[in-house]
Amino acid sequence: MRSPQAEAAAGGFGNETPPLPGTRFRSTVSLHKLRRFNILILVFRFAAFCFSLASAIFMFTNSKDSDLPSWQDFDAFRFVAVANAIVALYSLMEIGASIWEILRASTFLPEIIQVWFDFGHDQVFAYVLLSANSAGASLARTLKETDTCTASNTFCIQSDISIALGFAGFLFIGFSSLLSGFRVANFIINYSGFYL
Amino acid sequence: MRSPQAEAAAGGFGNETPPLPGTRFRSTVSLHKLRRFNILILVFRFAAFCFSLASAIFMFTNSKDSDLPSWQDFDAFRFVAVANAIVALYSLMEIGASIWEILRASTFLPEIIQVWFDFGHDQVFAYVLLSANSAGASLARTLKETDTCTASNTFCIQSDISIALGFAGFLFIGFSSLLSGFRVANFIINYSGFYL
Repeated sequence: MRSPQAEAAAGGFGNETPPLPGTRFRSTVSLHKLRRFNILILVFRFAAFCFSLASAIFMFTNSKDSDLPSWQDFDAFRFVAVANAIVALYSLMEIGASIWEILRASTFLPEIIQVWFDFGHDQVFAYVLLSANSAGASLARTLKETDTCTASNTFCIQSDISIALGFAGFLFIGFSSLLSGFRVANFIINYSGFYL
Repeated sequence: MRSPQAEAAAGGFGNETPPLPGTRFRSTVSLHKLRRFNILILVFRFAAFCFSLASAIFMFTNSKDSDLPSWQDFDAFRFVAVANAIVALYSLMEIGASIWEILRASTFLPEIIQVWFDFGHDQVFAYVLLSANSAGASLARTLKETDTCTASNTFCIQSDISIALGFAGFLFIGFSSLLSGFRVANFIINYSGFYL
């Protein structure tokens, strides 16, 4: 008969199935934990989607009159609009993948591809969004000293709002990238058996 | 007698010592791996230190003549100079901690504090540095269209070089933050027994 310690070490599985790192994934407790984790990621992605979409819309509609300055006239504002639009699109896609994962308890792409795809894109898009918003904020600040803002104060205020929303979007995609980074590390450590 | 499977599941340890997650840390193979990992972090930190120090020096010395424009006159350039100086200082400190860890095979602060300290600061400083450099690049681009650059072309070129060096510094502190993020995840998974 096996000792209680050996039983515990084997994770409660029978002798025929020694616990491979991946098998912990299947236990009910882990599934609950994974579900909570996925719901948290979903919430962050949804927030990132809302903020970056709002930011992109605010910037894209920032040229009502042909006499007034337009967002297309400024490199940094073009960068803000496009970066936020891309992040909104990516977040929408990831919301779909996240819902799929919560409902079916398996990833949309094969797991190794999915975790690296999510993490890589989260990291890159978080940096791109921050870079765009910082460049936009710097330009908006410079414009305040020129006569662009005296000619059309609405243009400057709308740009400021768009950039502020963009920063909020960055915050949430940054949180998502932390969580998806944890998933990658978890995947590497548990599946490849790589321990420090 | 215990079956070979149970023996394997218990990780080759006796019945008295079921393998706690942390005990893998002590094996010689792991120590070698940890040493390689720490040397890689040290290389990244050294590169980040060199680039951000060079960037800060280039920006701080960008006002030789009182008639010409100075970096202090522009918010974004002040941000670039200060952010790079802070990152250079932080990197120097982390180089010290890294060398301590390689030589003594233990962290400078208690391990839980050290891994979170490194990761948190790496993340924040990577974002701060990127933000500063993006804002600086945006301003430098705007300045090219004004008469500041025609009055003193050297000022604009030196700013550009400083910003480019700052982006290189960001790249290396970004890599460091990936590695220290992996260390945090490894710490959470192996020491607190948290598995997804």
